[in-house]
Amino acid sequence: MIKVFDDNYFMRQAILEAEKAYELGEIPVGAVVVANERIIARAHNNTEQLTDVTAHAEIIALTAAASFLGNKYLEDCTLYVTLEPCAMCAGALAWAKLGRLVYGASDDKRGFMQFGKRMLHPKTKVEFGIMMEESKILMTNFFRDRRKMV
Amino acid sequence: MIKVFDDNYFMRQAILEAEKAYELGEIPVGAVVVANERIIARAHNNTEQLTDVTAHAEIIALTAAASFLGNKYLEDCTLYVTLEPCAMCAGALAWAKLGRLVYGASDDKRGFMQFGKRMLHPKTKVEFGIMMEESKILMTNFFRDRRKMV
Repeated sequence: MIKVFDDNYFMRQAILEAEKAYELGEIPVGAVVVANERIIARAHNNTEQLTDVTAHAEIIALTAAASFLGNKYLEDCTLYVTLEPCAMCAGALAWAKLGRLVYGASDDKRGFMQFGKRMLHPKTKVEFGIMMEESKILMTNFFRDRRKMV
Repeated sequence: MIKVFDDNYFMRQAILEAEKAYELGEIPVGAVVVANERIIARAHNNTEQLTDVTAHAEIIALTAAASFLGNKYLEDCTLYVTLEPCAMCAGALAWAKLGRLVYGASDDKRGFMQFGKRMLHPKTKVEFGIMMEESKILMTNFFRDRRKMV
């Protein structure tokens, strides 16, 4: 049987969120939170619109997911995000005891992995590289457009 | 001349915030953001009330400060917080390019210093130990009371 709702499907939804950010002039990062094969939260980076450095896609998505569930712990949830989370977001995912993290492209400069996987909760499963190219292209195009504008 | 608005004065204000958290059954951590010797944001830990792991005193305070200033960067601000920030909060302070961080008690388990000072922005000045005992006593009493309740 073909599995309709697989990691590629949900990462595609995260990319759609990233594209919304792009259109708003925000660094294009998107995220969705999934529980029982159902999307319970969607968000994109919104730091410029909100004048708030904490308004990363992951932070908004996990706050929305916790609000939806009425539970601040997301042990049975998967967060899909187009880019490797930064240290702030990894710290938030650790507090939320996230069940599973799936990210697309790596972020060598700002990604949490420079501090090691111990930034996350020890029970959080991690996968990456899902639709990596699509996420990277969005980022590359965004910064290329910005340079043109300056 | 006696300086009225010194680090002790502002840390006392952060402790007052922590006491509010205590009364609400929240882990007692408080913070204030100061610009030009003026408090522009006050907050306390509110994770239980908001069902949101990201609702730490520092995150709420820096979001409020950025909103007040209309600027997401807090280069000319000092954040006073009663407890050493966690990795999530340190990551947020880094994005905000915080000018100066002053914290009271250290947090060996969850504090950002386990990952090193490089978690913060390279230009952020850091001081700690201001009114450390008062902050510690609040935490110790809080967890002692909680154990009694169980």
